[in-house]
Amino acid sequence: MKVLGVDPGLTRCGVGVVDGVAGRPLRMVGVGVVRTPSDADIAHRLVLIERGIDAWLDEHRPEFVAVERVFSQHNVRTVMGTAQASAVAMLCAARRGLPVALHTPSEVKAAVTGSGRADKDQVGAMVTRLLRLDAPPRPADAADALALAICHIWRAPAVNRLQQAQAAARRTHPASVPSAGIRRGTPQKGTR
Amino acid sequence: MKVLGVDPGLTRCGVGVVDGVAGRPLRMVGVGVVRTPSDADIAHRLVLIERGIDAWLDEHRPEFVAVERVFSQHNVRTVMGTAQASAVAMLCAARRGLPVALHTPSEVKAAVTGSGRADKDQVGAMVTRLLRLDAPPRPADAADALALAICHIWRAPAVNRLQQAQAAARRTHPASVPSAGIRRGTPQKGTR
Repeated sequence: MKVLGVDPGLTRCGVGVVDGVAGRPLRMVGVGVVRTPSDADIAHRLVLIERGIDAWLDEHRPEFVAVERVFSQHNVRTVMGTAQASAVAMLCAARRGLPVALHTPSEVKAAVTGSGRADKDQVGAMVTRLLRLDAPPRPADAADALALAICHIWRAPAVNRLQQAQAAARRTHPASVPSAGIRRGTPQKGTR
Repeated sequence: MKVLGVDPGLTRCGVGVVDGVAGRPLRMVGVGVVRTPSDADIAHRLVLIERGIDAWLDEHRPEFVAVERVFSQHNVRTVMGTAQASAVAMLCAARRGLPVALHTPSEVKAAVTGSGRADKDQVGAMVTRLLRLDAPPRPADAADALALAICHIWRAPAVNRLQQAQAAARRTHPASVPSAGIRRGTPQKGTR
């Protein structure tokens, strides 16, 4: 599976594409940052982010998009811009019918480092190792975007197994098991 | 001037178009609400809001779009969705090259009622009176969208006078007066 990870931000929006499946070596397809000038007005910055994300979707044709889930307990001043940038990323993906998954920062850290409280350097080091890169991707937003994509690839099998188990249960006990899991355009595991 | 006001929200996004100039009776061109199902995933809801706003822009061809400025001190749970819906509204407008203005809730209330702390009923009553409607628009989100448009029409002349004064000053003392005011796609007065 090919996943575009997006670490949303108005000034720097990290983007990274990873290809692979859980249990096999992963491959980095591309990594970068969509930047917008901090002195531009917010509406124009959102247009620039839309163009940037659309360009990445056009070039790499991912099958899934994983976006960092934004919480409002962070810095009050920056969180609004982050929420707005994430909205544009989700919109660009969903408009194409791509499934959008949201993962929290601690889910991403736990997936790639084993600890939900790992720091930026640890995440960068593990992304470098897992993707067999020569050096940690810079800036940190780019590394975080790759970590999101890796997190999504590794969490997806759990969702798939859940779907398979539910399908098997439905065959045995019809109508007793609710349907869940990956639907197109629906946040997957990690969504509350 | 014809202004589309947008009161952003994921479940109900108020939209209202008002035509007129400050100092003359205003005319309501249209009012409504873009709704999205609360059980749909966020990415799909943003696509529905995009379609709704685009349909209003297509039908009414406003010259300006006024969006409520979202603050994060509100309810933490709803403010993220509000910020994301506002991002989509700003994006739809800026993509067409329309100027986007942000006004705070208290600026809007002060503009239409004279008090920045007016309640919903007061705002609804004044919108009804100013637009010579038979009854307050329902739901309140629709009335708020009209109030935003009215606020924008009434605040715009101050910006225009500022621009005229600056232009006059530049003719007298070239290069001594910074350019400011309405630019395409730039938040106008009320922007920090």
